[in-house]
Order: sequence, then structure tokens, then C-alpha cells
Amino acid sequence: MYNEKGDKMIKYPNGKKINTSITPTVSTKTHRRGMSLEKDLNISNEVYLARKRAIIHKKPTPVQVVKVDYPSRAHAKIVEAYYKVPSTTDYNGIYRGKYLDFEAKETASKVSFTFKSIHPHQIKHLQEIIEHDGIAFVIIRFSAYDQNFLVKASDIVEKYHDPNIKSLAYKWCLEHAYLISTGLYPRLDYLAVVDEIFFN
Amino acid sequence: MYNEKGDKMIKYPNGKKINTSITPTVSTKTHRRGMSLEKDLNISNEVYLARKRAIIHKKPTPVQVVKVDYPSRAHAKIVEAYYKVPSTTDYNGIYRGKYLDFEAKETASKVSFTFKSIHPHQIKHLQEIIEHDGIAFVIIRFSAYDQNFLVKASDIVEKYHDPNIKSLAYKWCLEHAYLISTGLYPRLDYLAVVDEIFFN
Repeated sequence: MYNEKGDKMIKYPNGKKINTSITPTVSTKTHRRGMSLEKDLNISNEVYLARKRAIIHKKPTPVQVVKVDYPSRAHAKIVEAYYKVPSTTDYNGIYRGKYLDFEAKETASKVSFTFKSIHPHQIKHLQEIIEHDGIAFVIIRFSAYDQNFLVKASDIVEKYHDPNIKSLAYKWCLEHAYLISTGLYPRLDYLAVVDEIFFN
Repeated sequence: MYNEKGDKMIKYPNGKKINTSITPTVSTKTHRRGMSLEKDLNISNEVYLARKRAIIHKKPTPVQVVKVDYPSRAHAKIVEAYYKVPSTTDYNGIYRGKYLDFEAKETASKVSFTFKSIHPHQIKHLQEIIEHDGIAFVIIRFSAYDQNFLVKASDIVEKYHDPNIKSLAYKWCLEHAYLISTGLYPRLDYLAVVDEIFFN
């Protein structure tokens, strides 16, 4: 049993404080890797929001609630629920008057990013966004190199549908994707890349 | 204990079937009312998506997961979680190349829709969307009359910040909001109203 975020003390709406930094009893390596890119993006999005540059939020993780208990009249406690497969991407919002939509993925591989990590629903969703003239992309972190790439959705959709291609090679990313510069505020300035490739 | 959706048999990712149409042991009247507007909107959004008219999805309900069990290697079972206050609105997406964002609320009152039903975060979010030139509104269902109104976010934000106003009167809606026509496909054709007030 562990907390999904690996966060420190959190104050819940009902005033209950819970130490959630419990050491996981099972391997959550993949999960934790995903979280750190997520945290960098969330912090970057807060900076963008505060500077009135963009409004981009992460969607909540979809959960199917099965049972809810009411320990008291006011508080609902979910006691049985399951993670659901997401039907869209993780992030969306508005930037320079346009709709923006992306998925963020992290890989430990030094060679490639496997398409197994992306759900078919998400590819279909990105394709639809392109058809509706939205800004769509995927951010891929190669944690071995500590590099974050912005891959245009049109590129990933094309490669995903090629039966001979099962992954996106790191070498391909170096040549055809866009390296996102890292800093302090924002940590990941992916909108600088968006400016370059979608507004130039 | 009951299922949050009040739905029929659902097949979960792990193949487990659960009868979720259990009669609630506590009053969930408010909750169930909200669900039916949500269902109408979700079905309308499916029609819009299939017709390539718009891509609008409901965001998942935000849940703070505290404990996860692993009954088997592959399946994560959430055993302790709590509903969180949403920081944005329920629905967003892309329509006619523009970013669109709205909240949906239902009231049983015959007189007014109370602002207590909207979180300050959501008002702030709608205000930000307006500043970024997005399409923003609230859909309010007066279930007593079976009428659904589209209220421009600019109107609701203005009234929300007026210390003398604590609710939106039904009479005000009849005069200043936009009645959404109901049909079969889509059930709630709110984009027809969006065309009229945001694209004319």
C-alpha cells in the first residue's frame, strides 16, 4: 500500500493529515518516473498561468469508483475503486487563443520510446485534435539522458500507424523532435518550442 | 455504500463484473440530479465528436488516492481515496478552432441557482479563460422546469463578484441566459447556442 504521488504531508479536505511518503512495498519505478515529469510539467504550467501566458492543466487520473463509505454525514470515503484507461491525453488548455493538447511520457530506455506506452485511444484523440486545427504533441523524457523532447502529434500518429515501426528511436528524436530547454521558471519551457513550430 | 454513477452492470478492466445499481443508503438526490445532466452532455458530446463538429470531453472527477492494494501483480485496487475539490471546470475541448470550456450544474430550486454550488476556483478559472479569449460558459439545468440554460461566463463572473447577489434568479435566466434546445441527437444542442452568441 502506498500513495500514488509519493508526496509529503498533505492536508485533506476533511482536515485529516496523512503521511503519504511511505516506502512502496512493490516496485513503482515506472510510476515514479512518470510522476517526476508530471511534477515538472505541473510546476511549469503554474508559472505559465501566473504569468498569464497560458492556461494548461493536467486532467485528473480517471478512476472508476465502486464503493463509497460515509464515516460521517459530511465525508465520503472511497473504499473500492480502480484506475481506468484514459480516453484522452493528460494535458490540455489554451495558448495564444488556440486549443493545445498533449500527452507526457517518460522512458528509461536509452534506445527508444515504445508505442506500447501510448494507448490507441490517445493516438486517435491526438489525430482528432489535428483535424480540428488544434496544437497537439507528445512530450517524451529520456531519463537516461535527462532530455525532454517535443514530438509533433502528426509525426507520432504517422509512425504509430506504420506496421513496421513499434517505437520511436532516440536517434530519430535527436534529428526530428524538438529538445525542450530546462530552467528554473519554468522548469520545462515547452511553450518556447510550441512558439517555434506552431506559430512561425 | 453505493456506486457513484448509479449505472447498470459495468465490465472493469480486470474482467470483474459488478452490479452497481445498488440502492443508496443515504440520500444522493443532488448527486443523481447532477448525473443526469452529465449523461445528457456526455451523449451530446459523443454525437458532436462522431460528426466531427467538436471535441469536448468531461474531465475525470478528481480523487486523492491514499492507499492502493495489489491483490494480484497486474491489478491495482484503490482502497482509500477521497473526492477533491475541482480546480477547474468539468468540460473542455475544441470547437471551430477555438478553445471551449464550461461547467454544468443542476438545481431543483424553482426560484434560483445558488452560487454556493460553484467553487471560487471555478469562477477564477472561467475568468482566466475569458482573458485568454476562450469560449467560456456555464450550463444550468432547472430540473423543476426541465430547462437548460447557457449562461455566459462573463455574466456569471460579474454577478458572482457582486456582494449583493448570492444566486442567479430563474427569472434572470429567462431574460438574459440562452435556452438550450433539446432533441434526440444531440440531446442538448448547446453548440447551436455557442454559434449564436460567440460566432455571430
